[in-house]
Amino acid sequence: MKPIRTAIIGFGKIAEDQHVPAIAGNPRFELAGSVSRQGKGPAPNFTSAEDLLAAVPDLQAAAITTPPRPRFDIARTCIARGLHLLLEKPPCATLGEIEELRRLAEAAGTTLFTTWHAQHNGGVAAAKKLLADARIRSMKITWHEDVHKWHPGQQWVFEPGGFGVFDPGINAFSVATAILPAPLFVREGTLFFPANAHTPIAAELSFTSPAADGPLSASLDWRKTDGEEWTIDIETADGSRLQLLDGGARLLLNGDEVATSGIGEYPDLYARFAQLIDCRESLVDVEPLRLVADSLLVGKRETVEAVTV
Amino acid sequence: MKPIRTAIIGFGKIAEDQHVPAIAGNPRFELAGSVSRQGKGPAPNFTSAEDLLAAVPDLQAAAITTPPRPRFDIARTCIARGLHLLLEKPPCATLGEIEELRRLAEAAGTTLFTTWHAQHNGGVAAAKKLLADARIRSMKITWHEDVHKWHPGQQWVFEPGGFGVFDPGINAFSVATAILPAPLFVREGTLFFPANAHTPIAAELSFTSPAADGPLSASLDWRKTDGEEWTIDIETADGSRLQLLDGGARLLLNGDEVATSGIGEYPDLYARFAQLIDCRESLVDVEPLRLVADSLLVGKRETVEAVTV
Repeated sequence: MKPIRTAIIGFGKIAEDQHVPAIAGNPRFELAGSVSRQGKGPAPNFTSAEDLLAAVPDLQAAAITTPPRPRFDIARTCIARGLHLLLEKPPCATLGEIEELRRLAEAAGTTLFTTWHAQHNGGVAAAKKLLADARIRSMKITWHEDVHKWHPGQQWVFEPGGFGVFDPGINAFSVATAILPAPLFVREGTLFFPANAHTPIAAELSFTSPAADGPLSASLDWRKTDGEEWTIDIETADGSRLQLLDGGARLLLNGDEVATSGIGEYPDLYARFAQLIDCRESLVDVEPLRLVADSLLVGKRETVEAVTV
Repeated sequence: MKPIRTAIIGFGKIAEDQHVPAIAGNPRFELAGSVSRQGKGPAPNFTSAEDLLAAVPDLQAAAITTPPRPRFDIARTCIARGLHLLLEKPPCATLGEIEELRRLAEAAGTTLFTTWHAQHNGGVAAAKKLLADARIRSMKITWHEDVHKWHPGQQWVFEPGGFGVFDPGINAFSVATAILPAPLFVREGTLFFPANAHTPIAAELSFTSPAADGPLSASLDWRKTDGEEWTIDIETADGSRLQLLDGGARLLLNGDEVATSGIGEYPDLYARFAQLIDCRESLVDVEPLRLVADSLLVGKRETVEAVTV
């Protein structure tokens, strides 16, 4: 079987650190080119998607790893050329854009895969299995880190459309929606906007779910300066306690480590992409982004100290 | 054919002014009861949906006209009882809740109708027909009114989940999405939050659409004190100009009044509800609410003078 000739469009840190090795490590894919406005991606490199598409005519797929805003136009162009698409998270800047890409990919018969890399962590599948028939007594998401450590110099996270603390927080949402046996709905919350920012630096949220009888909450905070915590802590009605640690990489059941068998986030994600292409299927999951939008719809707003990263 | 026994849940101004006369004027429906926490709806009146459902066992349908926040729980209870539902706009507080109601109604085989009353204005169907195959050169939505005149004493519009200027603005979105031959996507915008408010008092937005080659914009403003304006002004590539005036009630084509034949917003809306029930179909349109959510996702935030209504 000939490998799927794939381009990476938007060559930043995530492309270099994750997509290039995942493609190199999967014989189903072959890296056929890249797009970087700075001209620094793997050869053949182009400075626009149009140039790439014109120069590499036998391209079959692309991973779009640009910031969210330009993705929609690039994706439309690629779908019109019949490419299968993998979109980094979050898939687009708005929910409306994703719906349109879903429609276009369906009409074109191409695969559209809106990825949420955190869902491919080792502990996630195991947690999902353990919770398949569970009633939830409580869930507490804690996603605390230092924006100065994780986004140095990236003031754009506080610009319009930059997502703010929802940029990491959407990873938590993607894991929570993957493991819970029923959907999550935002009930209420408070969003903390720095005086000089258009996006929140922290959010305290509560949720409801048809699968839950008790409190469901998320604490997202970019102001933690002593280390980081990315945990989802769940108690079930039968008295079990599941702790997903390190963003989903580790799972504890009643305090004991559960062995997980994942092959790694991005290798797993590309394996799924190949399956979807083989089956001519799409996987378009808007739930994590919808939870962000719903948080903005119902959230209380508080202004906090200005921030510069 | 026996009339459809219908209750009104949430008996405020819109129920009294619009839903009661529309039900009374349509022989397909019979008002079978109401719910009002203040106990002031048409008899038999109850103070909770549970009491209504327990006391009126042959109920077939309900119009939910409460504020958005409590609708989801009421709607779930009603769907579980097999009722066909009409939801006032906006259908729920969040997009996640609507998706769940869509799923529940489908599973229960009941009709779910998320209404946008402005779409039932006389000029809207005529405008939609005229634009069916058009390319759009420009669109300008102007939705200006005085919040003190239209929402006196209703400070809750500025509380979390209160929608602010999007409460009227979502009517404009519902008309624009109904008449344009392709979807609208929020590109960027500025939201103006009063210093004491959790929702915007004004919004300046720009959009894109696969049907448009030029600028698409919306100016929503609750700070206009000399009268009001609710217009959608569209130029097409072939040089025509459509002006929907008075929220959609009137239509001008190249300056000339177009005769419209509507039976009125709420009579038309209930006629559609009867059709949907007859065909066991649902009509769940989330686009207007998604445009609000997308505006919050990408919008710039500015703080303006505090407001008290």
